Amino acid sequence: MQIGVIGLGRMGGNIVRRLERAGHSCVVFDQNPDAVSGLAKDGAKGAGDLDDLIAKLTPPRAVWVMLPAGKITEQTVEHLAEHMEKGDIVIDGGNTFYKDDIRRAKELQGKGIHYVDVGTSGGVWGLERGYCLMIGGEKAIVDHLDPIFKTLAPGRGDIPRTPGREKFDARAEDGYIHAGPVGAGHFVKMVHNGIEYGLMQAYAEGFDILRNKSSDALPADERYTLNMADIAEVWRRGSVISSWLLDLTSDALAKDESLDHFSGSVQDSGEGRWTIEAAIEEAVPADVLSAALYVRFRSRLDHTFAEKLLSAMRFGFGGHVEPK
Amino acid sequence: MQIGVIGLGRMGGNIVRRLERAGHSCVVFDQNPDAVSGLAKDGAKGAGDLDDLIAKLTPPRAVWVMLPAGKITEQTVEHLAEHMEKGDIVIDGGNTFYKDDIRRAKELQGKGIHYVDVGTSGGVWGLERGYCLMIGGEKAIVDHLDPIFKTLAPGRGDIPRTPGREKFDARAEDGYIHAGPVGAGHFVKMVHNGIEYGLMQAYAEGFDILRNKSSDALPADERYTLNMADIAEVWRRGSVISSWLLDLTSDALAKDESLDHFSGSVQDSGEGRWTIEAAIEEAVPADVLSAALYVRFRSRLDHTFAEKLLSAMRFGFGGHVEPK
Amino acid sequence: MQIGVIGLGRMGGNIVRRLERAGHSCVVFDQNPDAVSGLAKDGAKGAGDLDDLIAKLTPPRAVWVMLPAGKITEQTVEHLAEHMEKGDIVIDGGNTFYKDDIRRAKELQGKGIHYVDVGTSGGVWGLERGYCLMIGGEKAIVDHLDPIFKTLAPGRGDIPRTPGREKFDARAEDGYIHAGPVGAGHFVKMVHNGIEYGLMQAYAEGFDILRNKSSDALPADERYTLNMADIAEVWRRGSVISSWLLDLTSDALAKDESLDHFSGSVQDSGEGRWTIEAAIEEAVPADVLSAALYVRFRSRLDHTFAEKLLSAMRFGFGGHVEPK
Amino acid sequence: MQIGVIGLGRMGGNIVRRLERAGHSCVVFDQNPDAVSGLAKDGAKGAGDLDDLIAKLTPPRAVWVMLPAGKITEQTVEHLAEHMEKGDIVIDGGNTFYKDDIRRAKELQGKGIHYVDVGTSGGVWGLERGYCLMIGGEKAIVDHLDPIFKTLAPGRGDIPRTPGREKFDARAEDGYIHAGPVGAGHFVKMVHNGIEYGLMQAYAEGFDILRNKSSDALPADERYTLNMADIAEVWRRGSVISSWLLDLTSDALAKDESLDHFSGSVQDSGEGRWTIEAAIEEAVPADVLSAALYVRFRSRLDHTFAEKLLSAMRFGFGGHVEPK
Repeated sequence: MQIGVIGLGRMGGNIVRRLERAGHSCVVFDQNPDAVSGLAKDGAKGAGDLDDLIAKLTPPRAVWVMLPAGKITEQTVEHLAEHMEKGDIVIDGGNTFYKDDIRRAKELQGKGIHYVDVGTSGGVWGLERGYCLMIGGEKAIVDHLDPIFKTLAPGRGDIPRTPGREKFDARAEDGYIHAGPVGAGHFVKMVHNGIEYGLMQAYAEGFDILRNKSSDALPADERYTLNMADIAEVWRRGSVISSWLLDLTSDALAKDESLDHFSGSVQDSGEGRWTIEAAIEEAVPADVLSAALYVRFRSRLDHTFAEKLLSAMRFGFGGHVEPK
Repeated sequence: MQIGVIGLGRMGGNIVRRLERAGHSCVVFDQNPDAVSGLAKDGAKGAGDLDDLIAKLTPPRAVWVMLPAGKITEQTVEHLAEHMEKGDIVIDGGNTFYKDDIRRAKELQGKGIHYVDVGTSGGVWGLERGYCLMIGGEKAIVDHLDPIFKTLAPGRGDIPRTPGREKFDARAEDGYIHAGPVGAGHFVKMVHNGIEYGLMQAYAEGFDILRNKSSDALPADERYTLNMADIAEVWRRGSVISSWLLDLTSDALAKDESLDHFSGSVQDSGEGRWTIEAAIEEAVPADVLSAALYVRFRSRLDHTFAEKLLSAMRFGFGGHVEPK
Repeated sequence: MQIGVIGLGRMGGNIVRRLERAGHSCVVFDQNPDAVSGLAKDGAKGAGDLDDLIAKLTPPRAVWVMLPAGKITEQTVEHLAEHMEKGDIVIDGGNTFYKDDIRRAKELQGKGIHYVDVGTSGGVWGLERGYCLMIGGEKAIVDHLDPIFKTLAPGRGDIPRTPGREKFDARAEDGYIHAGPVGAGHFVKMVHNGIEYGLMQAYAEGFDILRNKSSDALPADERYTLNMADIAEVWRRGSVISSWLLDLTSDALAKDESLDHFSGSVQDSGEGRWTIEAAIEEAVPADVLSAALYVRFRSRLDHTFAEKLLSAMRFGFGGHVEPK
Repeated sequence: MQIGVIGLGRMGGNIVRRLERAGHSCVVFDQNPDAVSGLAKDGAKGAGDLDDLIAKLTPPRAVWVMLPAGKITEQTVEHLAEHMEKGDIVIDGGNTFYKDDIRRAKELQGKGIHYVDVGTSGGVWGLERGYCLMIGGEKAIVDHLDPIFKTLAPGRGDIPRTPGREKFDARAEDGYIHAGPVGAGHFVKMVHNGIEYGLMQAYAEGFDILRNKSSDALPADERYTLNMADIAEVWRRGSVISSWLLDLTSDALAKDESLDHFSGSVQDSGEGRWTIEAAIEEAVPADVLSAALYVRFRSRLDHTFAEKLLSAMRFGFGGHVEPK
């Protein structure tokens, strides 16, 4: 089917490619004209601006917005809302906060424009592996867009089937779900990323403990110099903790066991933060997911004010002077 | 090759089966005679007691002890040490604390008996999938036992190879590693389990946030009733957080989305605790792994004394009376 | 000076008493007529409803709202805003979220009504000890209300002076500060409560570790049966961790060392939650304050869904069945 | 009474002074002869070495060892044990691990020498305020030493009495307790320090959130530039979170609100670590105390290996390159 795609970065570009390969017809736009022309080679039809993109689509239109969450997405959706027509569909495939989805959908509803939110996981690997899609919106609209979702999703592949799945929605096994009303898709994706932070931090702490087992501070007969790369690799095979993140870890450690060229100043996106806020709203204890987020905050700082205050108190009661 | 196996529980029994199927010759013993006779059908030679087992093995003997960590393993190793001979090998395949390995190896060294520690991951699935093995001990001894390890490990299977692994020890790709001197195998396995706790808790918190999104305490237009089983399934496919633990989660949720027949009083083994102690010894911050352990402690209690003290303080400064 | 006070619960009633004792003139209202008549004995002038209260005050009026944060406070402020006049002042002395203060102040500004937020700490002890006040609002208005604040605050008493305070605002030593523009008072009070959670939890965990030192699970020669009440008392005297919360702890433990009549189902107010949200907005790692909040969430539940999922995974990979 | 004191650092020196002022008679030794001669002015009798100190004491001797926990204390106690006589008493007033106390007491018991462990809190302020003492040992011996403990402890002073304390051991109100058998004193002191870490971190995080409220990353109308010194001061007066640590905080912030001359590389002693190990042994969840310890570990590092691994994974799945 025909679809407009706005935002042709790493994710958006590959989404277009995957759709074109499957015979869908994409009209595409990006602030960067090179991105537009680059995709023309893959069969996509380029647009010069948002209005041109709208004009090149046949009603009822469907436009997939694949931009960084925040102001740029907000402005783009607002512009589309103004210039699209009753029955058209705006799809936000980025990492938007689900409460913004709920608000926007209400705004667009007044004009008869439908809003669908799609949480999209898969990173740079999506073109090859397919994207895991978590979708929120009205049932009829989500069903209408099914050909798009089915193409983008990974499909069953050779992943072993979960016993007893026969009685459930088959789409989950194809790699996409209709999670619920508007916002539900991004909500599920948000929690997905919260979990991702926690998983990553669990591996990270474990490897940190392994690596520091060679520390001089330990008794000599309790020190080991362990091979990080071999350990990551062996855990991929038959262990309880095998995962795709471990595959990536093994990959990185095989390239450079010391990881010295990585800064360790770890960014966080909104989704990790919103996950904790959701936990707090629901009164769900989220110790691990919070701790994982805080490690990232801390990783970007030289010292916190908190730490200086600890030093100050220690000086106050014990005369302790911390080494620089 | 010939090997003695002591302890024929879930893990030990399957280890014998996997070895026998590959043509190795096992002499087996367990406190429970039925376990011994059961394995006779798989080709193993039963022994009536430890001494009988030793007698039925040809020197240099290798005996794999597969018992619960602690007193019973300790006593068994002591008995073997007394009755085995110079050049024989004791293998501890259980979940022994690595500092106990170091101590024992020193004790056995005096008699010329070799000690090998093997951390074994794979649970009830090992017979089919193979066991991920982390081995500590002297190089010559570990090499001598290679046929055993190679058989127990999963082998390469169809897991995609990690690029650049060619320059590393090939055994890791077959699912076993010689991690280092005595104790190193159990140390790596210990950290594996520590990570396991963290990963499990990350998923658990995420699904808790998903499930409580239907809570009455939330504004009506921000509530979703999400399908836990579908979400677990879809994340198996193309998402960043796919893993074997997620496969198991999807399996469990497909059977019963409410998980009501699980108690939630979660046990912990020594390994999760020792991982934190190792982190503290090394001064490695292990926020996530600790939090995961503490959730298990808390899960087994009705209320902590700490919580009662919080109630008492709140009454003290604010006159607050907590509901029962 | 004259002031209206709305909400005559534990805090509001004592505030009126403290003001009346110092010669201020209070016009008071509460939904509960008994509360109104009760304070008449202390010299306050009762009002029959909000409008009556407004009518009984001489412009420019000052009305202190001391109600539970949320809907009831919101409605009261709205009603006041409608019926009060240019130059009047609304003071919110409750535990309102500071972003609500900012929003309300903007709304009231249109009518020329001033808004002041006062974070009030002191609990049931405030009548006797005085209230620690953290104030947000316009300088001129806060200065105008100074007689009220000075009366409510504890004053210098016999607390030793902090060296070097001479160059700072003297009001802090009297127990009240003008923290900044509207919202700043409640923001500082919010963080105060966040810290309170952390402090309480630190003591609570410590006493839990002391109490469980008699556990049968420990080696016999490493068990102690410690006297909780004596320990709390001795720490009040010369130790680094002496505090008012410890005084209350000692008090509670002297009454009942087992604390058995406390439920341990610990409530949390909005302020503990908002503190974490503020930390996340600022990207400040707040591990301790978050953990303290989560303990309260957990304390009110039998089992979390998360814990059931842990049980389910353990069954999945290891066949483990958790005890009930 | 007469007592020997070994180790005349900040703590030991002041202990001697406080004892001499009260009329006790101290024989003192330190590796540093200046420390010895310095105390001679306060009335103490200097000793040239350990044996000289023993010789100058009248049996049954009591020797207070006030040295850094670890090797030096161990060696000193061993030397004393060899050269002292039946009926003599060794007091370890340092920060020794309580399991070492238990072991040592058993060793000394063979020679008829008594062992007493004293956890001593009070830091550099002890000379003036007195020391909070937590004592472990045999009842008869602890009673024999009572004059020493009573002198060192703060006494009742003007701290308000806890209601209902009449039925408890009066010594707690004088600032010292006999906590239990050998090791119990250091165990209680250990937990005291664990709590101290938690309290400090709670304040530290709170002030960090206050300080970062001026961050450019926040919406302009939600930023406040708060006065750290005034806030600390006002909280000392009538608030729920007043404490001695807060007094010290106010002191430090009055001197330098930015705390820029403090490094923030925060040291930890053994006691914070052992507290967590005790919690784990007892299966007590200690989220706050652990988090407080980990902040200190992290504060001394540039980046952890864990953080680099997070960067590596993020590059692996998303192509993200972290800024330096």
